[in-house]
Amino acid sequence: MFLSHLIPVKEAQKIIESILTQTGIEKIPLEDAHRRVLAEDLVSSLDSPNFDRSAMDGYALKAEDTFGFSEKTPAQLVIVDRIGAGETSKIVLKSGEAVKISTGAPLPEGSNAVVMEEYTLEDGDHLQVEASLTPGENVSYRGEDISHGDTVLKMGKPLKPQDLAIIASSGYEKVRVFKKPRVGVITTGSELVTPRPDISGAEVINSNHFMLKALVESSLAVPTLIHSRDNAELVEEQFEKLLETHDAIITTGGTAISKGDVVVDVADQLGQVLIHGVALRPGKPFAFAQVHDKPVFMLSGYPVAAMVQFDVLVRAPLQEMQNLKRATSYIKKITTRKIPSTLGRTDYIRGKTEGDRVEPLKIKGSGIIRSLVESDCYIVIEENLEGVGEGEECKVLLYDSLQF
Amino acid sequence: MFLSHLIPVKEAQKIIESILTQTGIEKIPLEDAHRRVLAEDLVSSLDSPNFDRSAMDGYALKAEDTFGFSEKTPAQLVIVDRIGAGETSKIVLKSGEAVKISTGAPLPEGSNAVVMEEYTLEDGDHLQVEASLTPGENVSYRGEDISHGDTVLKMGKPLKPQDLAIIASSGYEKVRVFKKPRVGVITTGSELVTPRPDISGAEVINSNHFMLKALVESSLAVPTLIHSRDNAELVEEQFEKLLETHDAIITTGGTAISKGDVVVDVADQLGQVLIHGVALRPGKPFAFAQVHDKPVFMLSGYPVAAMVQFDVLVRAPLQEMQNLKRATSYIKKITTRKIPSTLGRTDYIRGKTEGDRVEPLKIKGSGIIRSLVESDCYIVIEENLEGVGEGEECKVLLYDSLQF
Repeated sequence: MFLSHLIPVKEAQKIIESILTQTGIEKIPLEDAHRRVLAEDLVSSLDSPNFDRSAMDGYALKAEDTFGFSEKTPAQLVIVDRIGAGETSKIVLKSGEAVKISTGAPLPEGSNAVVMEEYTLEDGDHLQVEASLTPGENVSYRGEDISHGDTVLKMGKPLKPQDLAIIASSGYEKVRVFKKPRVGVITTGSELVTPRPDISGAEVINSNHFMLKALVESSLAVPTLIHSRDNAELVEEQFEKLLETHDAIITTGGTAISKGDVVVDVADQLGQVLIHGVALRPGKPFAFAQVHDKPVFMLSGYPVAAMVQFDVLVRAPLQEMQNLKRATSYIKKITTRKIPSTLGRTDYIRGKTEGDRVEPLKIKGSGIIRSLVESDCYIVIEENLEGVGEGEECKVLLYDSLQF
Repeated sequence: MFLSHLIPVKEAQKIIESILTQTGIEKIPLEDAHRRVLAEDLVSSLDSPNFDRSAMDGYALKAEDTFGFSEKTPAQLVIVDRIGAGETSKIVLKSGEAVKISTGAPLPEGSNAVVMEEYTLEDGDHLQVEASLTPGENVSYRGEDISHGDTVLKMGKPLKPQDLAIIASSGYEKVRVFKKPRVGVITTGSELVTPRPDISGAEVINSNHFMLKALVESSLAVPTLIHSRDNAELVEEQFEKLLETHDAIITTGGTAISKGDVVVDVADQLGQVLIHGVALRPGKPFAFAQVHDKPVFMLSGYPVAAMVQFDVLVRAPLQEMQNLKRATSYIKKITTRKIPSTLGRTDYIRGKTEGDRVEPLKIKGSGIIRSLVESDCYIVIEENLEGVGEGEECKVLLYDSLQF
């Protein structure tokens, strides 16, 4: 395998998208559906409210009985019942009568308005009403919020707290959502060890293990993490094993052309390598394959390159697999320094925003994790630009805007 | 109890903040620390990289051996060793020698630069170098990313994927984080039932159950959900029980003054009610108490009011309890319609943004969940404003900006 031809970022994105398939659908308890993606158009099986109800604490009455009355000359009514929320009055209200009523309780038959407690004076069963009401005042009508048969949410909606409320009010306590993609993550590299304060020799701490787990989680997918030495047989075995139960594979390390870089070769043997090398900086040594009809994303071993590759080439596909579509929300900032770039290559420079401005960090090198930690955004220099001058506007992608 | 005096939103926020205490600290596996809040200044116990290493696939050599050479007149060297990532050469490199080296491998003693494979020609043990290198070229020096003793992250940082990578590289596989607040949520209301397509009479579906669970989760706290009828003894029992094992209580319903509204009375009996009624619309019937030294947030039973109350008066406190501080990120938009308001009251109008503009939704009523589902932001009219005119700038708070 060889990084012979660097393809543009947009072309790589298209190739990846062309082979994606969506995860299946599962029915889950509504309680657990926060941040899941709705897999059906949700049609209400109920009116909400399901009856005409009082919008206030007060007294249900016939508005006509109060016409022309006021604080100085209050209407005189008789209280014939008292109901709290959840209670229904059996009364059929007649002219001259009132029913004390709580917010949310059904309007008694015969009444058509509610006077707020503040405008009344209660004395035993006698009620003075110091206001003139219009029919419908302080009444929430049946179906005012949702009508039976309304489509309240569309397929593909990532569910927010208020969406769960409307699904509940539509009569459902289970909901169909897209399954979260299960993603096998293989960090490769014989030099990698778990974090400890006493590493030695050529040992390097496997920081990608932790970063990739979190990145996959932040795409609302479910990661399984495995580590492998740089050994073709081992990597092949893990590919086969993970692909039996997972929807995609992500690897880190072994995407270049050096001795011991085996991942791309393994993917080539088991399936078809569709991309090897992207005109992206950092992140050039990215490969992508289709193995057993599933996508395999091969990232650099360097954390900075791996994170850029993930954000540019993996995050959106993992979201699309669960039918989660979201436009990348670029914003504009003024750069505080000149940013050089090269035509034909897309650059993702780590930046730190402050107000309308963004400072490109000077820390370079795709091994420098600090540059990711001290920045809050990418400054994106598209391939048709030779950089951006000091004080000029540039395209910025906030890290926070990427996560769901 | 009585909503006698509506206090301003900012005053309510101050009262709440004044009695908050922080949750404790726990040490957890770094793997699980994504989106948790760091409870220590994190000081690296390692240099990273931990040795001078090659930044490229190529050949380690003495830069001096290549001075003045080029593609036309390449330097001639002898390959004395070959090492992959994770391997260390035992060679002490002398003038005229080169060691084939993988990205990430330690630089052999005696070498001071790496030439990229692309600029070489290998023939058996003979190497032609078609470039003139400077000392340090393609070398990542020990400690270049992190130095032993560096404070790489400060206490209070919500941990992003890249933060986990730097903690790992600093030598740790466990990390101290603030405990997530455990929050008991009691939805009250004798009329409330679980979602089903065949409700009848005065029954109302308990949509707050689902919304509040998700809202608490979106504040990175851990909810326990309980429902109670409007019965003082039952509510009191649940207060006592939950407060034994939880850091805070949230209730919905029963905060007004009608028959059967018991929550505020119970809080008053068990502790001290500090707020009852806030100059907020929607959301006036909000109460807050301190019971057994813990905060008790009492929200309206109406979903819209409850969500506004949560976002304005509960979310930030739940975050602060785990030392998560984040400034509310208002943005500015132009309103497409006039928005009336009243001096002395803060309004949260549901709006829908489009580009630089925001449309205030016409759907009114704090029972109308649809207004929350169809909007993507609050338009905030501060208490010192009598509304905003059509085409004027207004303060906007995107729902997405509230969640972690």
